[in-house]
Amino acid sequence: MSNAYNRLTEERMGELQALMAYRHYTVDPERLKVYSHDEVSGEKYRALPEIVLYPETTEEIARIMKWANENRIPVTPRGAGTGLSGGAVPVFSGIVLSLERMNRILELDKETLTITVEPGVVTDEIQRAAKSAGLLYAGDPCSSDASFIGGNVAENAGGNKVIKYGATGRHVMGLEVVLPDGQIARFGGKLVKDVTGYDFVSLMVGSEGTLGIMTKITLRLIPLLKYSAALLVPFEDVETAIAFVPKMMTQAKLLPASIEFMDQASLALTGRFLNSELPYATAGAHLIIELEENDKGLLFDEYTRIGEMCLKYGALEVYVADNRNTREKIWKARKAIAEAVSSFYPEHCMEDIVVPINRIPQIVEKVRDISERYRLETINFGHAGDGNLHVTFLNHRYTTEQWEETIENALDDLYRETVLLGGTLSGEHGIGLKRKKYLSTVLSPTVLELTRRIKNAFDPNGILNPGKIVD
Amino acid sequence: MSNAYNRLTEERMGELQALMAYRHYTVDPERLKVYSHDEVSGEKYRALPEIVLYPETTEEIARIMKWANENRIPVTPRGAGTGLSGGAVPVFSGIVLSLERMNRILELDKETLTITVEPGVVTDEIQRAAKSAGLLYAGDPCSSDASFIGGNVAENAGGNKVIKYGATGRHVMGLEVVLPDGQIARFGGKLVKDVTGYDFVSLMVGSEGTLGIMTKITLRLIPLLKYSAALLVPFEDVETAIAFVPKMMTQAKLLPASIEFMDQASLALTGRFLNSELPYATAGAHLIIELEENDKGLLFDEYTRIGEMCLKYGALEVYVADNRNTREKIWKARKAIAEAVSSFYPEHCMEDIVVPINRIPQIVEKVRDISERYRLETINFGHAGDGNLHVTFLNHRYTTEQWEETIENALDDLYRETVLLGGTLSGEHGIGLKRKKYLSTVLSPTVLELTRRIKNAFDPNGILNPGKIVD
Repeated sequence: MSNAYNRLTEERMGELQALMAYRHYTVDPERLKVYSHDEVSGEKYRALPEIVLYPETTEEIARIMKWANENRIPVTPRGAGTGLSGGAVPVFSGIVLSLERMNRILELDKETLTITVEPGVVTDEIQRAAKSAGLLYAGDPCSSDASFIGGNVAENAGGNKVIKYGATGRHVMGLEVVLPDGQIARFGGKLVKDVTGYDFVSLMVGSEGTLGIMTKITLRLIPLLKYSAALLVPFEDVETAIAFVPKMMTQAKLLPASIEFMDQASLALTGRFLNSELPYATAGAHLIIELEENDKGLLFDEYTRIGEMCLKYGALEVYVADNRNTREKIWKARKAIAEAVSSFYPEHCMEDIVVPINRIPQIVEKVRDISERYRLETINFGHAGDGNLHVTFLNHRYTTEQWEETIENALDDLYRETVLLGGTLSGEHGIGLKRKKYLSTVLSPTVLELTRRIKNAFDPNGILNPGKIVD
Repeated sequence: MSNAYNRLTEERMGELQALMAYRHYTVDPERLKVYSHDEVSGEKYRALPEIVLYPETTEEIARIMKWANENRIPVTPRGAGTGLSGGAVPVFSGIVLSLERMNRILELDKETLTITVEPGVVTDEIQRAAKSAGLLYAGDPCSSDASFIGGNVAENAGGNKVIKYGATGRHVMGLEVVLPDGQIARFGGKLVKDVTGYDFVSLMVGSEGTLGIMTKITLRLIPLLKYSAALLVPFEDVETAIAFVPKMMTQAKLLPASIEFMDQASLALTGRFLNSELPYATAGAHLIIELEENDKGLLFDEYTRIGEMCLKYGALEVYVADNRNTREKIWKARKAIAEAVSSFYPEHCMEDIVVPINRIPQIVEKVRDISERYRLETINFGHAGDGNLHVTFLNHRYTTEQWEETIENALDDLYRETVLLGGTLSGEHGIGLKRKKYLSTVLSPTVLELTRRIKNAFDPNGILNPGKIVD
């Protein structure tokens, strides 16, 4: 496949620079290294680009893409580099197109309840801007303090509030996109409903930068609910905690904003990293259940009811955090897990499987079997209310070579079990480079062929983010 | 284009019948007429099929499609025929594939909060099944007592609860689809999140039967909120009523389940049809605002607050219907409008424009100008909270020939004004046959070309529902 692409000769380098309005780029080998990988660990998920461009406008990107398409130069778009699937790795070298300078909030429109932003805006900033207008941007990935909204849309990032509000894609109303041949397309707009032709907005969402480069994103905002409370609920063991989740989802007759899960090992790791401890740190597992309402009394009723349900189904205790400080402490522990993993275990493998919500207890059991079979240390945490589990294998004993072989086998088993339970490879991190070879375990040859045809419809020369999702 | 297709010769007719497991079909000219049109009025939106098939299984449909694809016979899938865009009209004759015998609810899974159905189930039945399990299927088109869920998904039907819950597509988790060449594909599943490859589920939603035939549909159910109330709010005139909608959306800090709008002429028409009258029938316009909550006190607080807002912004009165009987009476009036139009004005043109919510007052003004310009009697009603207005022109004075010419001009003007306000052609009824020629007023050549490529990726021979959306 790499034969299909050309290299950036000196002449081409000159042409390319002439196309750029602001001349922000780098070819410095040390800087290029930074753009050779995302947050996936492992040498095989690294590749050096020839150049990194930092465009500032849609038109600049359009010129670059037109030229790259004509010259068969691979282009890999990149957000904050916080991805967990190797989606921003420039497998065939060429250009990395970093969107970090396209970081403006263009408009917060209170009359249509929308916010329009460039792709390089950090997600937290959008949340803060919405909040200051009494509104909510409901996308809430755990990485929101670092990840860009463009990456969130490209991966259809999930996060903490999916049960109630849906994943990132649910909030995307309009997109401006530069297509692989440099044409500029506009999909959707500030419209609540739109059935004018095919749903290109949804097709772009989660397409991992393989179909086009998003240059403007219009997001839906909703009224901010006034009150919220987080329950921290320790359980004796993982089984009891996890078995409770589908029960709550189906019996409580309300939609919590979050149901997050951390096993004991996750909690210990994040506690060590933050140098602080949550109550009942020795419990086998914790759930965080967040509720949001417009009425204090109703909120109280709801968390009392949920709390009683927890105790009935085996919780050791129910801590109610209905003020900001304790809520933040709880969430800090949950959100720091990924960073703690990277910090203590440079070699690790963080997975993103998703199963129907009633299958979580079974998949947790299967994960235990697999960990024993391959003598792997494993932590489990994730968005239990969505059936989305971040099974994370940690290398604490193997050489790199052994580790890679072991992980390969463990993933084979993990994905096979996941699919048997009606689940799939990724709930929010994407296929990218890392899970590409497993795609055929969940998608039939028919669907894989359709996938290739869609890719080909957008990018006949295969220059945009090549080597991702499918070949 | 029609040259591209073959006719059903006697030999082919025999082959086709041999493919069918249950031998349900008709070639009776009187029966064929029923399948020559949907609910769009006008001779130009009619075309006779050569045969109507009533398959009962996915495999049967797969065999039919494989054969039709090989023989270049056009196939037009059809639900309940309640469509409003001519989407089920067999423009190039051939086969109409009616899904009315695929009408089983296959599974209501309380553990995963999903329901799996065949495409020919009437939407109301799904709502009832969910409700009997204490759950809500939140898709709620006005035609829910007649339309099929397959049609709802194919058009991404909106309806009365879009503000709070989203249109039909928001609730679709998984699909089984027969592709135009007869292959069977499965997209999504019972998973809350899924980023394993491109979002084919969303691509199928709203594709108006041009990409594949949905044979199984898995829908998300949510906990049913316990209490609801409808406010019926008359206003002196349309301007005041309509100007209030974006104010409520942005200032009330809550999401009503519905904000419906009816002008005086709509109300008079539906009153005449139902032989009953709503209060203040002479008011210039009415809003119906529906609220749902889990707490009676909160519901009361909310409707009191909304009621006060209504009065502050010019409502003549606020009627609260918090019991089932009065709520049903109000909704009956709203839901009967389309039927009333068809009954009193066989020649009419019901539109489905959508604009950003803050643009509704302007578009209503433009509609008045257009009606005066072409001396058209017009009623306006629709889903004001979504910016979706069913502008409906009624023929009360013109000959058919004059009427068709007049409407053509009026639609040109209407769509132009809609697009100038950042709106689009259709919010929930689709492009189909009726709006195809206007598609280029909202979609750029780039997007139209992408649309053709997507169609071609699924249906290279162009046999599935040809003549719809784009050529």
